[in-house]
Amino acid sequence: MSLLVTGIGELTTHDDELGTLRDAAVVVDGDRIAWVGPASRAPAADERIDAAGRAVIPGFVDSHAHLVFAGDRAAEFAARMAGEPYTGGGIRTTVAATRAATDDQLRAAAGRLVGEMLRQGTTTVEIKSGYGLSVDEEARCLRIAAELTAETTLLGAHVVPAEYQDRPDDYVALVAGPMLDAAAPYAKWVDVFCERGAFDGDQARTILTAGAKAGLGLRIHANQLTAGPGVRLAVELGAASADHCTHLSDADVDALAGSDTVATLLPGAEFSTRSPYPDARRLLDAGAVVALATDCNPGSSYTSSMPFCVALAVREMGLSPAEALWAATAGGARALRRDDLGVVRPGARADLVLLDAPSFLHLAYRPGVPLISAVLHDGVPT
Amino acid sequence: MSLLVTGIGELTTHDDELGTLRDAAVVVDGDRIAWVGPASRAPAADERIDAAGRAVIPGFVDSHAHLVFAGDRAAEFAARMAGEPYTGGGIRTTVAATRAATDDQLRAAAGRLVGEMLRQGTTTVEIKSGYGLSVDEEARCLRIAAELTAETTLLGAHVVPAEYQDRPDDYVALVAGPMLDAAAPYAKWVDVFCERGAFDGDQARTILTAGAKAGLGLRIHANQLTAGPGVRLAVELGAASADHCTHLSDADVDALAGSDTVATLLPGAEFSTRSPYPDARRLLDAGAVVALATDCNPGSSYTSSMPFCVALAVREMGLSPAEALWAATAGGARALRRDDLGVVRPGARADLVLLDAPSFLHLAYRPGVPLISAVLHDGVPT
Repeated sequence: MSLLVTGIGELTTHDDELGTLRDAAVVVDGDRIAWVGPASRAPAADERIDAAGRAVIPGFVDSHAHLVFAGDRAAEFAARMAGEPYTGGGIRTTVAATRAATDDQLRAAAGRLVGEMLRQGTTTVEIKSGYGLSVDEEARCLRIAAELTAETTLLGAHVVPAEYQDRPDDYVALVAGPMLDAAAPYAKWVDVFCERGAFDGDQARTILTAGAKAGLGLRIHANQLTAGPGVRLAVELGAASADHCTHLSDADVDALAGSDTVATLLPGAEFSTRSPYPDARRLLDAGAVVALATDCNPGSSYTSSMPFCVALAVREMGLSPAEALWAATAGGARALRRDDLGVVRPGARADLVLLDAPSFLHLAYRPGVPLISAVLHDGVPT
Repeated sequence: MSLLVTGIGELTTHDDELGTLRDAAVVVDGDRIAWVGPASRAPAADERIDAAGRAVIPGFVDSHAHLVFAGDRAAEFAARMAGEPYTGGGIRTTVAATRAATDDQLRAAAGRLVGEMLRQGTTTVEIKSGYGLSVDEEARCLRIAAELTAETTLLGAHVVPAEYQDRPDDYVALVAGPMLDAAAPYAKWVDVFCERGAFDGDQARTILTAGAKAGLGLRIHANQLTAGPGVRLAVELGAASADHCTHLSDADVDALAGSDTVATLLPGAEFSTRSPYPDARRLLDAGAVVALATDCNPGSSYTSSMPFCVALAVREMGLSPAEALWAATAGGARALRRDDLGVVRPGARADLVLLDAPSFLHLAYRPGVPLISAVLHDGVPT
């Protein structure tokens, strides 16, 4: 089945040759884009959508989210806004609730968030485990995640669970051994929260090295709360992405700029923990590749909104609206090492978002406003 | 026709005696609330909505918006984000576009924004003129505004139009005389942008005094860009609201605290002009009444989202989630001197918002996420 989307007022392709088109059309064939060009020259198709002058962008690629969990932590959030610091300690609250939940409860809660994201234009989302923290629970969470996305990540090394409090290295061995084995059938990636109070550089290296050996791609929660070793480790090990990058030394920036490791920035976390924002401008100016993602999770960033992250990146992080949109789409694709996402060109996935606006600029210009008019996911109107 | 809304997981009433109710119900009769109490004791009604554990709040009262205009200024926004300062000078761009638009074009554009607001839970919106800046054009804009809301405001004194550039006092006389006469049939309020580059304290006093004499209530754009005379003038003249209040002296804060003038804060403007936020905490601690509103306009704040303003007020302005919700509902009602809005109690307007969340806390906890599940406006599901 082919589908013509025509009457596009402004089409952002993120393709160097196609650029930005006015009065454009896209033809979709199955789940792929078949043709892109001026509306006046569009070929015929089985069905037709008139964008009526709306702007069209690639679907958002949210490359960092924690969606398999139970409960929420609204009270912790309110306490933090009243002055309590964020330390990541509340993760264990969610671990207890997640372990107590049934598969169906976890599936329903995660599915609800994926649906909420899709309605906000997110057509690809990476989903991490990390609230199970035992071999069986992490495997269970990843099995559920794998029902919802192809981009699944083992984050057994989220925090050291209470039962390993006094022997963290035993937990590292568990993650790098039996947990990795149990999770591998469901996981594409492995991730570590490399941070003071979570896992240090050596522990992260042990887990990531084992993950790479098991055939998983690498990601790291790096330099969120302190300028630790995470970013340099990510670059050294060839991780696809170093996520957060809030506290960076000059050496960290240089390392990212000289690498294939994407700096994935998560401004929702800084918003919701009232922390200073990462300096996206500094990274771009140095030559690093920047992605934006939500970090959707019940503790430090419970937003599921990529448009909100785009608006924050423009207001707070020195990105232009065009750079922020690229980071939230093509940048996320790079962070997942996918070349079929975040772009609108023949052969790419037919993931398109119609905005209730004449230009993508409105994503930053109209913060907080639900501007998603329609979403095409794998070629299917949702 | 009566309607029972039951199964409310958390009901915020803003009524001192009712407080916050769990497992609650509300009965609506016509456009008014008839009964509030525990779901188990709810009386029968003609129809029934099951909130299924959702949180319910009063409809948002957006007491400051500029919705009658043509065109947008997305390019000016992008330039500002790249470093251009905000001076208010771009207002004239919108004036030119507005004057060139037909009634139907203005009506459609404003109606679209009111609809967008309603979908985001705003059941009352104040609409200002201010992009006409001639007797006929201001009257035209207010006539259109009056089709959309009862809360209409003459803002002929938005900026001095180009044709009066060299004789601003003649423009003040025009506003305070013929423009006020022409607008009075459609306007409930009169407002002045009292700011360096717009209207000084004496000019504002002339216009507001004339407005009061014509029977209009008073509002002032005060202390947005500088600590000018606006707030003190608002208090002196008994204005219902001093809006913006970004730059306040101690004397300004004391004056507000000792008055019936509400301090209406507009964090969307600070977000979109990258300015420092007003200190809501300081105002509340001093005893002033604080309202939140969007300032929705194409130049300095093109958000229409009250949930976004609530999230900003919590992140940036020192309000608790409960204080921010009050300011965005009951506070807005106070700023419009309405006692039938912003509360859920028998006799109040049946304006209710069902959230796709178990608690109103999620408005701040889940920034950017469209959480409005359903809206009852004047007793009618929308």
